[in-house]
Amino acid sequence: MAEEKTIFAKIIDDELPSEKIYEDEHCIVIRDINPQAATHVLIIPKTTDIPRLADATKQHQALLGHLLLVAGRIARQLGVEEAFRLVINNGADAGQTVFHLHLHILASQTFAETSLGQEFS
Amino acid sequence: MAEEKTIFAKIIDDELPSEKIYEDEHCIVIRDINPQAATHVLIIPKTTDIPRLADATKQHQALLGHLLLVAGRIARQLGVEEAFRLVINNGADAGQTVFHLHLHILASQTFAETSLGQEFS
Repeated sequence: MAEEKTIFAKIIDDELPSEKIYEDEHCIVIRDINPQAATHVLIIPKTTDIPRLADATKQHQALLGHLLLVAGRIARQLGVEEAFRLVINNGADAGQTVFHLHLHILASQTFAETSLGQEFS
Repeated sequence: MAEEKTIFAKIIDDELPSEKIYEDEHCIVIRDINPQAATHVLIIPKTTDIPRLADATKQHQALLGHLLLVAGRIARQLGVEEAFRLVINNGADAGQTVFHLHLHILASQTFAETSLGQEFS
């Protein structure tokens, strides 16, 4: 079953241009092309076998832990380690648009004025 | 430096009552007492040494990966694996209210009508 490559797989394979603000053996970090906050970056594992968080299995445990550690590292790199939000959307109806696992890191001056669930009300 | 125990540490130590919808050696899952969505649960590691995600270090990698695997497991247990959102607030100005790492799992029928960054606009 040859699936179409996602935009993230193409970026990882350098078939699409991108400014990688961080890269290591296991993941890349890029800026979201449609930012929803003053700071909005995506942490993307290089493996293509985790379409959604719910598809991850025990074999991915170390990778998943690494991605959360990279979140802290990137927050420090961007100077937002005191106030940021990490979001993973799972499934189209939860706002996931690319079916290659990715973690959003969002930070904004207006955090204090908002609540976690405003968009759910 | 004896810090005051957080509400989560008290729940983990059974000093406060709670309905744990999942528990293993490393974490508990409880319902948020102030739900922001139809489904809103918290995945809480038992260790008290990670106040914020940004405070996690390499020694926590396996635990962090485990917490993300539990997210998928709990989503399936609650029947929301097709559409849920995982959120980690880091820092008071990002909405973190208890300084003991915890992962929010949110799911709602109204997901499709909302956007990730609505609250940031």
